[in-house]
Amino acid sequence: MTIQRTQHDAADDTRAELFLRDWRSLSRIGQTPGGGVERQAASVADAQSRTWFTTLLNQYGFTVRTDVIGNIWGLLEWNPGAPFVVVGSHLDSQPLAGKFDGAYGVAAALHAGRRLVEEGDAANRPKYNLAVVDWFNEEGSRFTPSMMGSSVYTGKLPAPIALATEDADGVTVAEALSAVGGTGSWTGPAPAAAAEIHIEQGRSLEDSGTTIGLVESCWAAEKFTVVVRGEQAHTGSTVIADRHDALLGASRLVVLLRELADRFPGGALHTSVGQLTVVPNSPVVVARRVDLTMDLRSADEGVLAEAKQLLEQGVKRIEQEAAVTVEISGSHAWGVRPYASAGVDLARECADALGLRSKPVQTLAGHDSINMNDVVPTVMLFVPSREGVSHHEGEYTEDADLCAGVDVLTEVVRRLCRGELDDGR
Amino acid sequence: MTIQRTQHDAADDTRAELFLRDWRSLSRIGQTPGGGVERQAASVADAQSRTWFTTLLNQYGFTVRTDVIGNIWGLLEWNPGAPFVVVGSHLDSQPLAGKFDGAYGVAAALHAGRRLVEEGDAANRPKYNLAVVDWFNEEGSRFTPSMMGSSVYTGKLPAPIALATEDADGVTVAEALSAVGGTGSWTGPAPAAAAEIHIEQGRSLEDSGTTIGLVESCWAAEKFTVVVRGEQAHTGSTVIADRHDALLGASRLVVLLRELADRFPGGALHTSVGQLTVVPNSPVVVARRVDLTMDLRSADEGVLAEAKQLLEQGVKRIEQEAAVTVEISGSHAWGVRPYASAGVDLARECADALGLRSKPVQTLAGHDSINMNDVVPTVMLFVPSREGVSHHEGEYTEDADLCAGVDVLTEVVRRLCRGELDDGR
Repeated sequence: MTIQRTQHDAADDTRAELFLRDWRSLSRIGQTPGGGVERQAASVADAQSRTWFTTLLNQYGFTVRTDVIGNIWGLLEWNPGAPFVVVGSHLDSQPLAGKFDGAYGVAAALHAGRRLVEEGDAANRPKYNLAVVDWFNEEGSRFTPSMMGSSVYTGKLPAPIALATEDADGVTVAEALSAVGGTGSWTGPAPAAAAEIHIEQGRSLEDSGTTIGLVESCWAAEKFTVVVRGEQAHTGSTVIADRHDALLGASRLVVLLRELADRFPGGALHTSVGQLTVVPNSPVVVARRVDLTMDLRSADEGVLAEAKQLLEQGVKRIEQEAAVTVEISGSHAWGVRPYASAGVDLARECADALGLRSKPVQTLAGHDSINMNDVVPTVMLFVPSREGVSHHEGEYTEDADLCAGVDVLTEVVRRLCRGELDDGR
Repeated sequence: MTIQRTQHDAADDTRAELFLRDWRSLSRIGQTPGGGVERQAASVADAQSRTWFTTLLNQYGFTVRTDVIGNIWGLLEWNPGAPFVVVGSHLDSQPLAGKFDGAYGVAAALHAGRRLVEEGDAANRPKYNLAVVDWFNEEGSRFTPSMMGSSVYTGKLPAPIALATEDADGVTVAEALSAVGGTGSWTGPAPAAAAEIHIEQGRSLEDSGTTIGLVESCWAAEKFTVVVRGEQAHTGSTVIADRHDALLGASRLVVLLRELADRFPGGALHTSVGQLTVVPNSPVVVARRVDLTMDLRSADEGVLAEAKQLLEQGVKRIEQEAAVTVEISGSHAWGVRPYASAGVDLARECADALGLRSKPVQTLAGHDSINMNDVVPTVMLFVPSREGVSHHEGEYTEDADLCAGVDVLTEVVRRLCRGELDDGR
């Protein structure tokens, strides 16, 4: 079924303006001088974003609830007792981050719901109810692992473990959430399907002049926490042969990871160390311990497996050459997983109906939708992001693309609520 | 002149016991489970050590004063108006450090003074007065640079700059000192000569079965602060070719420094990175900035100059290959400098007189005596330290060696006060 796009009219303009007004008020929360935001999970700025969300949910007629891990839910229960289409993203950010990552998806979900209310969808008694959501701590910068809220909701991470997680200052998730308004014992609504919209964090839409990315699958990712152990010593007096320098071992590991990425042609493997902490971190002390995180990603699970094997061999060499021990534990991983092809088709039809160019894409980054995709049919949409800049104040997406994305998401959500994904597609 | 050692008698035992009693009470302050101490500058444990010092100074008849940068002075002014022989070390420690580094030198100085009082040296009207000192912040782990107290006292570092230095939490030296008892405007006593005793932090005394090291000269050291700048990005989605990974650049620098040390045979060059801080330090963000410190030392200034040239070339390669910028600033340096040979001779005679084996050594580590040696004739003594372990809880020196060191230091200080170093030696 293809719907011809209705002519662009004054109502479209008003809807876009309403979205952009709310979007701009959100973007001012935790604003940084470089045009980005800093709203780490359960920080003051994240608390303010959460208030922005609950205030507007109330205004637009949603019922507001917070679950056991601090996910905020806006519910439209037009079919009492039926499960919910879950649509949203996250309001928390990395330190000194862009304003689009996550926040756009929540604002878009809020407005998709608002439009369905305005357009009287309830009168048609949709098969499923609608829940828009702000997932807690998607970024994982303050509390590891990332995607915490959706991991708890989908049963991958027990709530008590998540709540006991500490930040670098020893503050637990439970304490931090209690300081920003508390949680409860509710575990969230029963899901029927899910959708999320996000900026691409890549260049493929921009390079091809496409407005809507239809996410077909995600890259596999493996994240590890690593402890490199050496022995504390004096930087001046300890002879080199006697040293067990944990920072030297860690540095060799950082270099090794980049060499691994360079070994696989065509950018088939992404490797990174983003976090690295030196103990005791004194100018005149050889480090006794370094904690770091390793992040390996590929669209090809075979590449990832091969890289891990090479990594293991390299680590053995480093242990010998730097006279340290390296202890690696897996912390978080996901495989290459397709999003339901029926959902990709449905999203394409919605874009077509609105006269918007779309194309299939992959997601290299992790999203809460990856967790949702494991439990219900899930649609993931992208809009272009300039030069693919991500986790940086310089993130940028045009207003027109933001508005087009809300239009498509609204149409997708409407159809998901009608149950179109389970009608034998 | 050679003094034959008097026969070992009951008074010697009592003096040794008194020293060891005070030494043990000091070692319990800021004690760690591993048998070391943690007493970073102006921490609570450092404050307690300072109280240990002032309490005993008062008990043993010293006049106690604190100077503008928080050095604590115990004065014995037996010749009013004359300058002072300055003898001491530092009570602050590295994080999770050994209990001997610095603390032994202060306890030994305290007891050298105590013995001179007990033995009635004042009756002989020595040429110079005696000042025992706890130099503030020798370690530089909390506040950079190291050797802060003696650098201010010797005019190398202006007091206002030192007082405004901030720790990692933004606490200034002035605030930290005011919290542990305050400072004043006094700039300390006029110096005539100086002495310091310390554990060796090397193996040469232990390996040769020698009790007293006569420090002839110090290794040259150059310390640098480095800022590596890259660009913040997403670890998952940012293609490798687009990355400007500050942590990769920093890691290559750590590895390069070790390669430089390996290039000079016979351990002629020591290189280290002890402190390294990643920004923003999130598991899923490519670092935009890394701050680190580099420490290069050699007994040969030519080696150091050559190493710096190689370092410069290496840094250029790293900037290109890792697509980052590296900004290096010198923070603290000293040359290879001899201690007065007359002082070495004097110390050897004192050891001989006590029947103790001594030998000339060099110091690879920095000490407050290096600053003092630039302004007055200075004697630096070492006692053995097991396996040269340093800046580590496992530091260890035998009681017998500690006591022998106090005996020699007492004799050295007695002679310095008599003006023997300026009697045409």
